[in-house]
Amino acid sequence: MLAAQLARHYPTVTLGTDALEAARILADARLPGLIVLDDHGQPYTVLPGSQVLRFIVPSYVQEDPALARAYDEASADSMCDELVARTVRDVLPKRVHLFDLPVVASDATSIEIAAVMAGQRSPIVAVMDGSRYVGAVVVSALLEHLLGAGSAS
Amino acid sequence: MLAAQLARHYPTVTLGTDALEAARILADARLPGLIVLDDHGQPYTVLPGSQVLRFIVPSYVQEDPALARAYDEASADSMCDELVARTVRDVLPKRVHLFDLPVVASDATSIEIAAVMAGQRSPIVAVMDGSRYVGAVVVSALLEHLLGAGSAS
Repeated sequence: MLAAQLARHYPTVTLGTDALEAARILADARLPGLIVLDDHGQPYTVLPGSQVLRFIVPSYVQEDPALARAYDEASADSMCDELVARTVRDVLPKRVHLFDLPVVASDATSIEIAAVMAGQRSPIVAVMDGSRYVGAVVVSALLEHLLGAGSAS
Repeated sequence: MLAAQLARHYPTVTLGTDALEAARILADARLPGLIVLDDHGQPYTVLPGSQVLRFIVPSYVQEDPALARAYDEASADSMCDELVARTVRDVLPKRVHLFDLPVVASDATSIEIAAVMAGQRSPIVAVMDGSRYVGAVVVSALLEHLLGAGSAS
């Protein structure tokens, strides 16, 4: 089976998407991260949920989580305020690694996708039909296919 | 809200779980990884789906995924054979990093959990009631809570 057949819709945001909206999409979709498309609609990187948290939790609390005890629940409110009037571009780390979101062509085979995921330790690959982003393959879907292929033989 | 209230059931395997069964659980649960408990039922690490793929895809193909084109679909069958008669212990990397699976106490606050996830760039934390594993908090559930706390104020 080829990437074009294994690819599914996966929530995306752009660099210009409101950061608070991106956090809501992450929460609603119950996903560990979102695919970020650049200004030309090309896969750019993954925005992990933990990166959103890095933006809203003060760095000294990240270094010593015991300090979080000094905050009450109401503080969660003002923490999320950090996301207001910010975009995904603001929230992403300054250095985006190109291998954060592997990309394969729509005619990549399942074993090629497995090799890319394995080599880059990625739970997701974006699938391109030429220069058009068409969806993503997640590792659980690929394993389902590989295991199914095995048991059917 | 405390970790005990935010924690949910999350699929776990043990070091002795059959590797093929672990792959099936990953596929069926549509998750990027599973929590691995040690022989004493304590959280040990996370088994990412990509690590399962690292075990079944030959390393020279991981280094050059274009070589995957030499394999046909039927080869997926024999690849998954690599998992037969192996355990999760066999499939895990030789060096397991202790921070791969952060752990918090059941009375940790939501902000403390956020600090741990942010500091360790983890999409998941295991929750312990004393020495008993009670479940996990994933980043999307934590964001849902933090955003809800914000909008309700």
